[in-house]
Amino acid sequence: MTRGAERTGTTSCVRHRVPFYETDAMGVVHHSNYVRYLEIARILWMEEHHRPYREYVAAERHFATTRVEVDYLHVVRFDEEVAITVWLEWIRGASLRMAYRLEGPAGRVATAATEHALVDTAGRVRRIPKEDREQMASLLAR
Amino acid sequence: MTRGAERTGTTSCVRHRVPFYETDAMGVVHHSNYVRYLEIARILWMEEHHRPYREYVAAERHFATTRVEVDYLHVVRFDEEVAITVWLEWIRGASLRMAYRLEGPAGRVATAATEHALVDTAGRVRRIPKEDREQMASLLAR
Amino acid sequence: MTRGAERTGTTSCVRHRVPFYETDAMGVVHHSNYVRYLEIARILWMEEHHRPYREYVAAERHFATTRVEVDYLHVVRFDEEVAITVWLEWIRGASLRMAYRLEGPAGRVATAATEHALVDTAGRVRRIPKEDREQMASLLAR
Amino acid sequence: MTRGAERTGTTSCVRHRVPFYETDAMGVVHHSNYVRYLEIARILWMEEHHRPYREYVAAERHFATTRVEVDYLHVVRFDEEVAITVWLEWIRGASLRMAYRLEGPAGRVATAATEHALVDTAGRVRRIPKEDREQMASLLAR
Repeated sequence: MTRGAERTGTTSCVRHRVPFYETDAMGVVHHSNYVRYLEIARILWMEEHHRPYREYVAAERHFATTRVEVDYLHVVRFDEEVAITVWLEWIRGASLRMAYRLEGPAGRVATAATEHALVDTAGRVRRIPKEDREQMASLLAR
Repeated sequence: MTRGAERTGTTSCVRHRVPFYETDAMGVVHHSNYVRYLEIARILWMEEHHRPYREYVAAERHFATTRVEVDYLHVVRFDEEVAITVWLEWIRGASLRMAYRLEGPAGRVATAATEHALVDTAGRVRRIPKEDREQMASLLAR
Repeated sequence: MTRGAERTGTTSCVRHRVPFYETDAMGVVHHSNYVRYLEIARILWMEEHHRPYREYVAAERHFATTRVEVDYLHVVRFDEEVAITVWLEWIRGASLRMAYRLEGPAGRVATAATEHALVDTAGRVRRIPKEDREQMASLLAR
Repeated sequence: MTRGAERTGTTSCVRHRVPFYETDAMGVVHHSNYVRYLEIARILWMEEHHRPYREYVAAERHFATTRVEVDYLHVVRFDEEVAITVWLEWIRGASLRMAYRLEGPAGRVATAATEHALVDTAGRVRRIPKEDREQMASLLAR
């Protein structure tokens, strides 16, 4: 799927330089911060390939996170740059799944996936509008 | 002021055991987390001496932070306990100032102060209701 | 496994009251914070059932996180209490897996699992000392 | 002092686009994150005007934060860009003070200052090496 998405040019990639405050007493980035890196990447993906996430927020809609998986392969240290590549893995009526690859100066740092459901401000699941869903589906690797 | 507040029993004290994720690559609690400790302490103070902060939130009011000052005296490490003592320093028509003393296993860790303005959800400054203000003013050390 | 662990009394449970700074603009706890809740819970588990994690830190060993999975079932809001229950799911020569159940005032909030490898300060994987491994293995539900 | 530093070209400016995870349930950036913005800015300043902070870290030296002051003037929201400008305010034998101006799309967001002491990994205060101190002193506005 990754290679498919890459082939069709529907990934986004954000570069993040590790600030000191993201490190922990092991001397490396605390693992919880990777989950935040994923969010930065998928919000960029929406902007580059779909539409700015702030438009969903303005319409009182959110893509609530329903699942997170991260496999940690290598540590990252203060001041190193992490490149987070993201693409859409699948989309359904009210939910979608994004996949991620994180790379640091020494290669692969982590792989990850997140799943999301569209919700309103009361937290009720809402169908993704047909035009939005079809546009995102067209970004899937074939 | 501190001693006055302590004399009149209008302080609150919260004990916080340092989680690993609050440490940084210096091996100590990252200094930005102290600002979060202050928030935990003043929310406890409101509950113990005034009324639960969630009542302000439910009424669409917030005590927006308008100033923070922290003097760092000693580091704190993973798994150590920090005791944060808080009291009201002054209160005016729409704002108030809280003062803090942080102590760890080896003594004084930091002193701090925060100032807050009552705002509505649009961010407009609102007068603190007279009864709330008078009740809080009665907690000031004399 | 859960029920087994619960039956044999080898879970730990930590209660965490949600501070304001853990919420996000959706009005609920940001999903990345759940990963931090897991850490608080498993460090308590080590203390209650194995030995204080600070002893590993003092010996320049860390249980580096190699995998995180979280399934989010329900939001949690400011000032609500989350109970995080944790138990050991398996242990091998140099790694182990913990499982978690998070409950809020309205029931199940999330389920999660984390995997860890014992590493030295250079990040090299090290075997878990035999006595430590056997003691932890004895905590597994049968 | 600000105008002096600006005149002599010894400020640095970092642009930070607000990620969703830095917002809170008031719908704005949580005030504790501003303290982290300051760190990003002064580390860039060291790199642009002095030398990369990672060289201090590699030499087992840190500029421990001894004081933080922030005045909050305006909220910042998700996806807005904050420009953090930083300059050196004074430098002494073992300590220095940085000043900051934060600007968002609608103008001034905050002003701030931080003080730092050079310490070794045991936390002992160490004199700033003469050549480093003199080089930084030359950056002060006159």
